[in-house]
Amino acid sequence: MGNHTVTSFDEELGAIDRLIRDMGDLAETMVDASIRALLDSDAALSQRTISDDAIMDARQRELDDRAITLIAKRQPMAQDLRAVVGAIRMAGDLERIGDLAKNIAKRVNAVGEAPTPRSLSHGIEAMSGLVLTQIRGVVDKYVSRQAGDLKALRAADEQIDIQYTAVFRELLTYMMEDPRNITACTHLLFCAKNLERIGDHVTNIAENAYYVMTGEQLPPNRPKLDETSMTAPA
Amino acid sequence: MGNHTVTSFDEELGAIDRLIRDMGDLAETMVDASIRALLDSDAALSQRTISDDAIMDARQRELDDRAITLIAKRQPMAQDLRAVVGAIRMAGDLERIGDLAKNIAKRVNAVGEAPTPRSLSHGIEAMSGLVLTQIRGVVDKYVSRQAGDLKALRAADEQIDIQYTAVFRELLTYMMEDPRNITACTHLLFCAKNLERIGDHVTNIAENAYYVMTGEQLPPNRPKLDETSMTAPA
Repeated sequence: MGNHTVTSFDEELGAIDRLIRDMGDLAETMVDASIRALLDSDAALSQRTISDDAIMDARQRELDDRAITLIAKRQPMAQDLRAVVGAIRMAGDLERIGDLAKNIAKRVNAVGEAPTPRSLSHGIEAMSGLVLTQIRGVVDKYVSRQAGDLKALRAADEQIDIQYTAVFRELLTYMMEDPRNITACTHLLFCAKNLERIGDHVTNIAENAYYVMTGEQLPPNRPKLDETSMTAPA
Repeated sequence: MGNHTVTSFDEELGAIDRLIRDMGDLAETMVDASIRALLDSDAALSQRTISDDAIMDARQRELDDRAITLIAKRQPMAQDLRAVVGAIRMAGDLERIGDLAKNIAKRVNAVGEAPTPRSLSHGIEAMSGLVLTQIRGVVDKYVSRQAGDLKALRAADEQIDIQYTAVFRELLTYMMEDPRNITACTHLLFCAKNLERIGDHVTNIAENAYYVMTGEQLPPNRPKLDETSMTAPA
């Protein structure tokens, strides 16, 4: 504030932050498009999401190159170094989110055009909505350096897990009702699982962002709430 | 060879390499134990694998701390910096392998004690065997700096994908035969998928190791062979 002496280090870190923001925007676009493609059987949208992943990978390589050059050139200490290493890690999580969205998009064809039951579509849309809010939130809080909000954001991942458990159970029900549903439901199960995993990557990003800003770890994570791995066999 | 002047940088990088080796050994142990727990319904072994994951996480934190301290203290340039950043990335992949093994272990209870059909057990064991060979191979080649072998190692991931596709299809068949199989088969499906993903992390490690050693990227990856996302719905 009032300090107009911007060092080159800060400028270069600003460029890295802009890449994080770009990757976050792209991650949102890809997740949103993959789920719309899935629920509307939209092959063109699915194809675009698959192509977008190459852009995501290129952004990550650019960020990595910038970050490593910055470390080598400026030889930052302590807090600055933490910021650069943290950015590399966050970019890794965003890239994985892109991969998971691409994986959803690749399943659009396998799920096929049979209409998805309405309550199931709603469940998957609800998960997707929560996930998109989380991605946008964590990138906003990182770029604007709002460490205090990250704890609540991480806690909100629980809602995604609850929704995932509901979708998982509903999918099992459809599979049991009619074996002809099994293949499509299996692919939808992986799609729902991917959304749940995207939530976990957001959690990682929140933890990294907190560490970058404060130099401290967020308190140990809440116990994982994905109950589906505890579901007893029928 | 014959050069007895070991710099502190090399010593510290050696300590980081030993941590990579430890994490690789632990990853192997966890994957092997999780699959044995799954196929033998061994609750104690499953619990040990879940506990091992905390050790894996601690190893990764130790490696990260050492690596960041090393960068800050020695301010390495170019090739040395690449080695340290590469080690951070490889540790990230090994830690994810531990997570995936833990996730398999957590499903042991849900899969239950109903005997798994023999051909299915064989398929999952075959996947697990391939995966263990890949983990051991990539860590060996990294620690002994054998860049030339990494391309063939990465190509061998295709065998895991082929085996995964076979297991996937067999699981669908069992689900269609009898709806009472569906819940257990769904968990086995996630376990098989986790093994396939562990293979992908080995691929990442191979690519990182190659970059550390040569400063060049391995040529773009072969097209992904997981055919299951293309399987048409029944």
